[in-house]
Amino acid sequence: MSDAKTPEPIQFYFDFSSPYGYIAAHRIDGVARHHGRTVDWRPILLGPIFKLSGGAPLSTHPIRWHYSLRDFHRTCRLHNLPFALPEKFPFAATAASRAFYWIDHTDPSLAREFAKAIYDGAFAKGLEVWTADGVAAIAAAQGLDRQACLAAIEDPHWKDHLRAITDQAAAAGIFGSPFFIVDGEAFWGNDRIPEVDAWLARGGW
Amino acid sequence: MSDAKTPEPIQFYFDFSSPYGYIAAHRIDGVARHHGRTVDWRPILLGPIFKLSGGAPLSTHPIRWHYSLRDFHRTCRLHNLPFALPEKFPFAATAASRAFYWIDHTDPSLAREFAKAIYDGAFAKGLEVWTADGVAAIAAAQGLDRQACLAAIEDPHWKDHLRAITDQAAAAGIFGSPFFIVDGEAFWGNDRIPEVDAWLARGGW
Repeated sequence: MSDAKTPEPIQFYFDFSSPYGYIAAHRIDGVARHHGRTVDWRPILLGPIFKLSGGAPLSTHPIRWHYSLRDFHRTCRLHNLPFALPEKFPFAATAASRAFYWIDHTDPSLAREFAKAIYDGAFAKGLEVWTADGVAAIAAAQGLDRQACLAAIEDPHWKDHLRAITDQAAAAGIFGSPFFIVDGEAFWGNDRIPEVDAWLARGGW
Repeated sequence: MSDAKTPEPIQFYFDFSSPYGYIAAHRIDGVARHHGRTVDWRPILLGPIFKLSGGAPLSTHPIRWHYSLRDFHRTCRLHNLPFALPEKFPFAATAASRAFYWIDHTDPSLAREFAKAIYDGAFAKGLEVWTADGVAAIAAAQGLDRQACLAAIEDPHWKDHLRAITDQAAAAGIFGSPFFIVDGEAFWGNDRIPEVDAWLARGGW
């Protein structure tokens, strides 16, 4: 019998429409693994959260948007990730997020692969991940049943589940994407991943 | 005769009321020096710039402000800097910025020391750096003439100079603090300093 407690997973909140969420999705598992930690992936919808926190999509203001576009491309090149802005941006990630929780309910590992496929579809492959059909096609490519995925997207259970998780995230003070909770400590942004790494290494500072 | 051109200084734009500007002010010269580069320090006023770019002080929204406060303290601890939120926040840095350019006109090196003293006064020592008297007291501590500083703060020449630099910064797409221009490439935020470092090391990527 050991006194060592199993450490809490890192909570990784993200919106599928978030370019920095896409980048973080390719980084956070590696950082966690390096410290013997796991990650709970939690898609949320920033739309209702922005209404509470006064946030706005990065594309709202032309001057900031000009910089953001350049920073997306530059940050992706730095991390050896392809980047192409989706035809529709920002997009409502409702269908993809509901499908995620439907998969996650039975197979969290597959749900993570699905999430990465949605992100890559959105920001690298030009796929229409904002439609139920686009989402179901990506699920099908993961070996899931296309019709069952479409049904889950329309199922009130998964609608309510996504809404509840988004509400809980807002209540916990989460206001952006990506957003990490590490042993109760909040970190906002892909650019805070080095700090997440240091926090895990040192147990805080 | 050599073909080597003297590299351009890094342009460092900041508002004296910006906590992340305070942190960056303690970091950017060291990064630049490591790559044999110099830094042009350029205080600006974010107030008029936010009107153009749709920006807002970090304290505008309670949920974001709660996180920001925690992040200021945490980031300062990481960089071994003291941090105490000024009694007035955000504050108008008009007097400090005009005094900066008055000093910078004849002694850029002293102006940089003055800027660090203003920042330390604001975010570490609880000084009232938003009043002309508070600014002149800091200038006097640097060996400058207190009355001459007060006169410069009211001098239309330095008023116009600060307004012109702020207008030029806005026209160049600068919308936040700290903001760096490295060989034409824009980087926003204290959290982009590692990227500034990498950009200088590699000449871009």
